[in-house]
Amino acid sequence: VLPDELTIIERYFRPLAGEGAFDLLDDAGRLDVAPDVDLVVTTDMVANTVHFLPGDPPDMVAQKALRVNVSDLAAKGAEPLAYMISLGISADIKEDWLTAFAQGLKHDQEHFGLRLLGGDTIFVPHGPVVAVTAFGAAPQGRMVHRFGGRPGDVLFASGTIGAGTVGLALLKGEPGPWEALPAEHKDALMTRYRVPEPRTALAPALVEFATAAMDISDGLVGDCDKLTAASGCSAAINVDCVPLPDGLAKDFEAPVLARLLTGGDDYEILAAVAPRKATAFQLAARAAGVTVTEIGALTEGTDPPQVLSEGRPIPLSRRAYVHGRGEGGA
Amino acid sequence: VLPDELTIIERYFRPLAGEGAFDLLDDAGRLDVAPDVDLVVTTDMVANTVHFLPGDPPDMVAQKALRVNVSDLAAKGAEPLAYMISLGISADIKEDWLTAFAQGLKHDQEHFGLRLLGGDTIFVPHGPVVAVTAFGAAPQGRMVHRFGGRPGDVLFASGTIGAGTVGLALLKGEPGPWEALPAEHKDALMTRYRVPEPRTALAPALVEFATAAMDISDGLVGDCDKLTAASGCSAAINVDCVPLPDGLAKDFEAPVLARLLTGGDDYEILAAVAPRKATAFQLAARAAGVTVTEIGALTEGTDPPQVLSEGRPIPLSRRAYVHGRGEGGA
Repeated sequence: VLPDELTIIERYFRPLAGEGAFDLLDDAGRLDVAPDVDLVVTTDMVANTVHFLPGDPPDMVAQKALRVNVSDLAAKGAEPLAYMISLGISADIKEDWLTAFAQGLKHDQEHFGLRLLGGDTIFVPHGPVVAVTAFGAAPQGRMVHRFGGRPGDVLFASGTIGAGTVGLALLKGEPGPWEALPAEHKDALMTRYRVPEPRTALAPALVEFATAAMDISDGLVGDCDKLTAASGCSAAINVDCVPLPDGLAKDFEAPVLARLLTGGDDYEILAAVAPRKATAFQLAARAAGVTVTEIGALTEGTDPPQVLSEGRPIPLSRRAYVHGRGEGGA
Repeated sequence: VLPDELTIIERYFRPLAGEGAFDLLDDAGRLDVAPDVDLVVTTDMVANTVHFLPGDPPDMVAQKALRVNVSDLAAKGAEPLAYMISLGISADIKEDWLTAFAQGLKHDQEHFGLRLLGGDTIFVPHGPVVAVTAFGAAPQGRMVHRFGGRPGDVLFASGTIGAGTVGLALLKGEPGPWEALPAEHKDALMTRYRVPEPRTALAPALVEFATAAMDISDGLVGDCDKLTAASGCSAAINVDCVPLPDGLAKDFEAPVLARLLTGGDDYEILAAVAPRKATAFQLAARAAGVTVTEIGALTEGTDPPQVLSEGRPIPLSRRAYVHGRGEGGA
C-alpha cells in the first residue's frame, strides 16, 4: 500500500528541497531574488493521457513536467532558479513510480540548476497530474517577450521542428513515413517527445539579440501566429528552410510536412532578431551549443503569417495543436 | 461544446490578469518584488471529490483553491500579492461552470488584493483539478515559521475549530449531533467548508508577536504536532478552551469532540507567543478583527502534544486528517 501524504513528502521530496524550502516542513517557502534581476514566473500542468502516456517512465514524466516550464523560462531569456510542484496521484500508483519520479526531478534539478522550493501531494481519482510553477531570473528590464518583433526582423528556430509530433506518432503506433526510420532515430524521437530539451543555453543570446521570442510548444505555425499577433505584424515562414529531425526528409507528402509544422511538443525557441544582429545572434547561439536556423522574416501587416514552399503557400488543415475538449495526446 | 484552451483563456482568465501578466499573452509573467520584503511562495492543489464535492458551486471551488493558499501566506505573516493557476477540466464541464469559476476568482482577487500573474488550462480525464501557487510579501527577515516556538510560549488558535469538519459531514449527510443544529448554523458551516476564511488580517500581529505559527488545515492536534516537532518542543492543549463553532457544545460525546479537534479544513491559525507578549498579541488580533483564544502552551520535551480536558488526556483515534490512498473528503 502506498504510504500517506506526509510519508511521501518526507521520503521522496524532502531530499530534493533547496534553500528557502525549509526542508518542506513549513507552510510556504521563501524565494530570495537578487536585486539586479527580474523574477520570471511560469506554470504548466501536465496530465496522464494528455501530455504523457500511461506507462511512460515516471522519471521522464517528472522531467517533462519540469522541462515544459524551463522551456518557457529559456524563451524569456531567464535562467532557471527554483520550482514548486503539485502532484496528484491515484490509487494505481506504486512506490516504484514515486521513486523514479523523484529521480527524474533530481536529475533535472541538477541539470538545469533548479531547486525545489515547495509542493503539495494529493490523491486524485485519475492521475497522475503534475502542476509545476517555475521561477527564473532575467537581467533587469530585459525579459524577452512575444511582443517587440518588428517587420524586417529575421525569424529563427532553434534545433529541429517536428520531433515531438513524430515521437508521439511512433509511441502511439500510428502509421506514417516515420515507420521506415532506422531504429535509433525512432528511439531518439520517442525520447524527445517524452523528455523535451529546453534551450536554456540560448537565453543569454535571446536577451542580447532578440526583439521577441517564445517557446514552440503548440506547433511552429500557430506559435508564430501568436508572436506576430503580439508584435503587431505578420511573417513569412519559408518551409524549405525549416530544419527537420534527422532522417525526416522534406519530400514527405504535404499533409505530413504540414503536421510537423503544426504539431505540438517541439519545445524549441522561435526568435525574431533585427537583420543587422542576425549574424551575431547565430554566432552567440553556436557558441552556446545551440543551432539556430533562419526560417523566415517578420513582415508588415496583420494577416496570419504565410507558410511558403518555393514561394507558394502550402496547404494547412490546422495552424496549431490546440487542446480541446476530449482531445488528447500532445 | 466547450471552447478550446485559447478561447477559454481569452474569455475567462484574461480579464483577471494583473500587472506583470502581460494579458496572459506571453510564455511567462514577471513578478516585481519590493526590495524591503521577503517573497513567500506556497502551492496547493485541490481536486474534485477530494477537496470539494461534485456539484459544489464553481465560484466556491475557485475561492477554495485560492484561499487554502492565502491561508498559508497569512500564517507566515505575509500579505497576498499574486497567484498562478493551473486548471484541469474534463469534458463534463460547461461554460456556465467556467463563468462562475472566474467570478469566484475575481471576487477573491479583489477581496484579498491578489492579482493573476499567469496560468494554464488543460483538459483532463477527470476534473476539475486546480493548482494554485500564491505569492506573498513578508517584512524582510520576519517571515513566521513553524519553528521558533519555545517551551512556555502561549498557544493561540484563531476563530473556531471544527467548522470545516462539521460542514463536510453536513454536506455528505452524515448522521451526528450536527443534524440538530438550526438551519442557519448548518448553512454557515457548509459554506465554511466550501469557502474557508483565511486570517490575512492576523498576519501583521503574527510578524510582530508570534515565535511560530502555521495554518490549521489538517486538524488542530496534528498540526500542533507539526509545529512542536519543527520547534523542538512539546505542548499541552486544553480542550476545554478550544473555541467551537456557534451551536456546537463541548458536551458532545468524546468521539465527536475528538473528530472536531483532528478534522481538516479549519484554515485557522495556530500561533505560539511568548507569555510577556500574549496580551499584546490578543489586543492586536482584536484590533485586526480576528478573535484569538489561548488554548494551551508549549512545553519542554519532544513527546507529541498532550490533549487534555479537565487535566486528563482525552482519547483520540487519530491526530490528524491525512490524505491517504483513496481517502476522500477534506
